[in-house]
Amino acid sequence: MKRKYNIALLGATGAVGQEMLSLLEERNFPVNNLIPLASARSAGKDVDFCGEKIKIKEATSNSFAGADIVFGAVGSGLSRELASSITNSGAIFIDNSSAFRMNDDVPLVVPEINPEDAKKHKGIIANPNCSTIITAVAVNPISKLSPIKSMVVSTYQAVSGAGAAGPQELLAQVKALLANDEIKSNVFQYQIAENLIPHIGSFLDNDYTDEEMKLQREGSKILHLPDLKVSCTCVRVPVIRSHSISACVVTESQVSIEAASKAIDKAPGCKLYDDKTKKQYPMPLITSNQDIVYVGRLRKDLTNENGIALWCCGDQVRKGAATNAIQIAELFID
Amino acid sequence: MKRKYNIALLGATGAVGQEMLSLLEERNFPVNNLIPLASARSAGKDVDFCGEKIKIKEATSNSFAGADIVFGAVGSGLSRELASSITNSGAIFIDNSSAFRMNDDVPLVVPEINPEDAKKHKGIIANPNCSTIITAVAVNPISKLSPIKSMVVSTYQAVSGAGAAGPQELLAQVKALLANDEIKSNVFQYQIAENLIPHIGSFLDNDYTDEEMKLQREGSKILHLPDLKVSCTCVRVPVIRSHSISACVVTESQVSIEAASKAIDKAPGCKLYDDKTKKQYPMPLITSNQDIVYVGRLRKDLTNENGIALWCCGDQVRKGAATNAIQIAELFID
Repeated sequence: MKRKYNIALLGATGAVGQEMLSLLEERNFPVNNLIPLASARSAGKDVDFCGEKIKIKEATSNSFAGADIVFGAVGSGLSRELASSITNSGAIFIDNSSAFRMNDDVPLVVPEINPEDAKKHKGIIANPNCSTIITAVAVNPISKLSPIKSMVVSTYQAVSGAGAAGPQELLAQVKALLANDEIKSNVFQYQIAENLIPHIGSFLDNDYTDEEMKLQREGSKILHLPDLKVSCTCVRVPVIRSHSISACVVTESQVSIEAASKAIDKAPGCKLYDDKTKKQYPMPLITSNQDIVYVGRLRKDLTNENGIALWCCGDQVRKGAATNAIQIAELFID
Repeated sequence: MKRKYNIALLGATGAVGQEMLSLLEERNFPVNNLIPLASARSAGKDVDFCGEKIKIKEATSNSFAGADIVFGAVGSGLSRELASSITNSGAIFIDNSSAFRMNDDVPLVVPEINPEDAKKHKGIIANPNCSTIITAVAVNPISKLSPIKSMVVSTYQAVSGAGAAGPQELLAQVKALLANDEIKSNVFQYQIAENLIPHIGSFLDNDYTDEEMKLQREGSKILHLPDLKVSCTCVRVPVIRSHSISACVVTESQVSIEAASKAIDKAPGCKLYDDKTKKQYPMPLITSNQDIVYVGRLRKDLTNENGIALWCCGDQVRKGAATNAIQIAELFID
């Protein structure tokens, strides 16, 4: 009989936590006990899991006894606060926050790319940033042909990247615009309906945002490219779900478009979707509610003979967060 | 007494034509007679101009007698068909279509950048592509400090770039989504509401679209940079008005962010809007219905020591089309 695992879900009421619940069920993850955890405010409410209603408990340092795997779907602060309680309990902590991603002793894992890193964990495994996961899955097959030296990236990030309140705010603004009512912006810095906001995360001293720097920092660690340079511009767009990324990728030696396309077509987690005669290219409309990164618009970078331009889209709540975390856990099940 | 000019407006009923009418009035262009021209279908309807109603006439080869300046706001086909009738009548043809932009004997002009080229015309002056105008205005001050060698560009183009029917289609789709009705897509290849479409124009043999190649071809001609290389990805976004552009600009020698910012701040047609502490960066929400290109998010390109990353927005119906054409005409008035 196959082993089953006790799973604690830290942040069971958030957008990523809710997605994890349905994905654990959808992927038939061998769950023995599910322990949904959240803030005191949500404790006592139910979550639905495999036809059962399970009571949410308040997340405290005593919540993790008996857990085999703890999924973290909360902010960095709470992840930091509870990490030692989790690892001391003997569980593996698969954390979706940015708290530990760049720690030397914490693997940062995309299972299609660097599953071997996961095995080196000392209790914590970090789940990368959403745009970074999607971009890394798309460009890794190219990097295997010739290591990537640099990328210029512009993102088109959906409002669901800001949690469940993001789509609610966009929808409320869309309705307010139609009714000529006042527009309220709480989740985003400005109105996002019919607008674009080139500001995700916090500005750093180099005038990039922390979100923009993740593509270089986390990308470098995941792809095992210590010298990777990435100039990234992150932009919030009025799309509900699926992040899109426009990238120019420069490799050490020249890679043909044919070779890159073939490699992407064969790579796990990727779908080559690139036929101009059939108007086939990735779009949020067709890539949401899936675990696959769609890659298309492959062509020679006209500014660099070792460059390739491409466009990719993926569901950032699933592959960009919840699915990737569960795939990491699947590396450890019998 | 100042001279007044007879102005024919070819395409008086379209989005750009309508904008030209209101801009001729707003800018107090010295109009003697206005001759609004359109297809037979629109002939006989009225346009409003300076408090008068003026009857639209059908555009034919006989429409241009007595005109001093003809503004073209129609497709390339009709521009080509009527061009010789216009120039034979002695008028200057300022054409917004792509028909003549790359002809050696046709100046391609952004008045803030290369007004001197306009004077070399042989009857036709071409108005550049909208994204190209906006990008060129933003990067020209940098190119004056050190010539631009290459740019990697991703665009975020508003639906009004597709003419008056673009915003109508987006709005209809937004309403249909709220009502759970069927989505109809006629103007765009796919649903644009809550979606992104990385396909504007027609695909060429090099797998770029003609829209994407305009930034290199037209940018090179306007900026007098014969060797300019541009890798561009053009994306339609669910925004009503104002195109946005994310660009990494590589110059021959290094330009500091401080010098680039100062040059942009002083340049005509530009507004430096770049203060992270005040959350000041260009957005479609604040740049529409204006003639100025907003430029912000200036920072070092991390992939190239001679590179600068920036983000700019401008109203593509105005500065990207109608305003630029009228500014060209203003170079010729007393």
